[in-house]
Amino acid sequence: MWRSLRPIGRSDASGGYRRYAWTGADAECRLWFQAQAEARGLDYEVDRNGNQWAWLGDPARGDAVVTGSHLDSVPDGGAFDGPLGVVSSFAALDELRARRVSFTRPLAIVNFGDEEGARFGLACVGSRLTAGQLTVEAAHKLRDGDGVSLPQAMEAAGYDPYGIGPDPERLARIGAFVELHVEQGRALDLTGDPVGIASAIWPHGRWRFDFRGEANHAGTTRLVDRRDPMLTYAETVLAARREAELAGAVATFGKIAVEPNGVNAIPSLVRGWLDSRAADQPTLDTVVTGIEKAAREYADRHGIDLDVVRESFTPVVEFEDALRDELGTILGARSERPLPVLGTGAGHDAGILSGSIPTAMLFVRNPTGVSHSPAEFAAEDDCVAGVLALADVLEGLACS
Amino acid sequence: MWRSLRPIGRSDASGGYRRYAWTGADAECRLWFQAQAEARGLDYEVDRNGNQWAWLGDPARGDAVVTGSHLDSVPDGGAFDGPLGVVSSFAALDELRARRVSFTRPLAIVNFGDEEGARFGLACVGSRLTAGQLTVEAAHKLRDGDGVSLPQAMEAAGYDPYGIGPDPERLARIGAFVELHVEQGRALDLTGDPVGIASAIWPHGRWRFDFRGEANHAGTTRLVDRRDPMLTYAETVLAARREAELAGAVATFGKIAVEPNGVNAIPSLVRGWLDSRAADQPTLDTVVTGIEKAAREYADRHGIDLDVVRESFTPVVEFEDALRDELGTILGARSERPLPVLGTGAGHDAGILSGSIPTAMLFVRNPTGVSHSPAEFAAEDDCVAGVLALADVLEGLACS
Repeated sequence: MWRSLRPIGRSDASGGYRRYAWTGADAECRLWFQAQAEARGLDYEVDRNGNQWAWLGDPARGDAVVTGSHLDSVPDGGAFDGPLGVVSSFAALDELRARRVSFTRPLAIVNFGDEEGARFGLACVGSRLTAGQLTVEAAHKLRDGDGVSLPQAMEAAGYDPYGIGPDPERLARIGAFVELHVEQGRALDLTGDPVGIASAIWPHGRWRFDFRGEANHAGTTRLVDRRDPMLTYAETVLAARREAELAGAVATFGKIAVEPNGVNAIPSLVRGWLDSRAADQPTLDTVVTGIEKAAREYADRHGIDLDVVRESFTPVVEFEDALRDELGTILGARSERPLPVLGTGAGHDAGILSGSIPTAMLFVRNPTGVSHSPAEFAAEDDCVAGVLALADVLEGLACS
Repeated sequence: MWRSLRPIGRSDASGGYRRYAWTGADAECRLWFQAQAEARGLDYEVDRNGNQWAWLGDPARGDAVVTGSHLDSVPDGGAFDGPLGVVSSFAALDELRARRVSFTRPLAIVNFGDEEGARFGLACVGSRLTAGQLTVEAAHKLRDGDGVSLPQAMEAAGYDPYGIGPDPERLARIGAFVELHVEQGRALDLTGDPVGIASAIWPHGRWRFDFRGEANHAGTTRLVDRRDPMLTYAETVLAARREAELAGAVATFGKIAVEPNGVNAIPSLVRGWLDSRAADQPTLDTVVTGIEKAAREYADRHGIDLDVVRESFTPVVEFEDALRDELGTILGARSERPLPVLGTGAGHDAGILSGSIPTAMLFVRNPTGVSHSPAEFAAEDDCVAGVLALADVLEGLACS
């Protein structure tokens, strides 16, 4: 499977993947998924929101067990984020058939559309629409960097953008969703485990810090006469690191916009975006409050006006205790010690769906800890361990 | 004169001026200059590089006294930077005629083209070409932000781009060039003088700092596993301020480019441009060396690769002692105390020409100290004081 999927949407220049929603590379990935489903005699369908499904057994029976992930990528993303979950799902089904198990519940493999949000700026569009967490009106307003709207992109790819929307009947037929994903940090590498179970997705948010000073000539304006917002920005970047370290959280200034952004001009505006995440809500509040307080003190000292706007926020996602414990029991029975249970700072379709149905996640070790980059990696042995763990889980949940 | 010049190229939105080389606003400014010259019965001409001249007396006699400045502006510049020198030149000539002086040397008023370099990125194109400090080949390669080349822009404005080049015969006829300019700092405001004399233009340069780290997921990468170049950039911005303060110089990071510049991505590259200037070369060397040393220490600590490239450099311009002393004598004789003599961090046509002919500058007080912004200002009384000082200088140099 990897051999046929690997070349799709790969950039020779970067070695990274560029599989964006409703592009040619995305269409090739979708054809690949359909071919895998049909080669296994599964019932293939595409739902109203463009998510692909491959069914074993009649979905109308309900209480289905679903596994899968996504095939799209961030710009110059790695080979595993998303595809590892889809490939492992098909491989786990092959393993279960080799074990000659009997299925007592319907089983499906899913490829959710536009998980990364690389093109339209919003992550998990396919699962959000299905779960009713994104309105049709809001989805129709999404535009990519070239001004192409989501409806235009969907129509160009041969899909009906006016049929999208919530899909409660579909969700009602699902008893459990289990997503396998490459780990996006180094927790499993540090504990020495090939596979782990997700506890929760950390609450996270994005805040825009607008530092406004006074544009002036960089050559002739005395230091004491300056109101230079770049200084306040720099102090705030360092404060964010300190606050995150103190709290055991993460905080990142990775995006900036400067006006007028001239070499010989003191800026009038420095706009920096903070991304921060923590294991729980009070910790995240402490970190962001601390950063904002420090920024305001620096701003006051330098005559800078500061506006802080929260642009997005996702509360903590705790995966369902019962399903998580069931996974722990199934997998713990077949290994020498309990599998590690770990939180993650990244969002997933499983997080979106956890508001509607019981969901759980398995993580596969990523020794580099690197994510959203070609350096993202999972060893072949660990991928096999992931497939076997997923097969065990599906057998435990869906077979007699 | 101000009334007719004021509306040209003025943006209603910002209140600032947008008079860029070879645009419609520039053409209007040029028509204004020609009209002022002709209204005074001066001989009007445009040289091969598009600089405008208005002559009183025969230039062929040589040893001419020239005054003037420029009419173009930076984006959303103020009303005075450039135009104050041109308007004051015509007003000073009116004053001298009112005084019924006799001219012993030819006199000219000049408007140098494209001083600010707002459109093609290189300052003082008109004077550089004339002085042979910019080759025709290099000038022909200049392009604006829309990809329009300098030759295309000149042709569109009705000028011959293939006739440009050095003009040593013209410079050989000039015995002295005196440029009056609004001050771009607050030195005169602090000493309480309406007018001052330039000592030198500070040496200055631009350095590009490339901080390269490792792109990674902002939500899932532990702080200890990060190689985040934004942190090193922030520390370097603060180090630049400290080093400049210690040395009595200026240092500014006003332009930045970040890759991938995503809210949820630790950057792989932060590129920051340093502009630094000091009163003399050893001081500037100390400042820049100190900033680079600090940046390298921070970079080593965080696993960041740092490249520093000097993109441009202009050595110190010392205005000719004899002419500067002559201005001091002329003006000192008519005021209660000697005029302040001050350096400046900004480049000027007078600085370019100082390599070819004796040049001097007068500065008029700018109480805001603000430059390259609509907030730039000179009071009417100070403008009048500037005109009278320039008239005194021209009388002392060119009249019996």
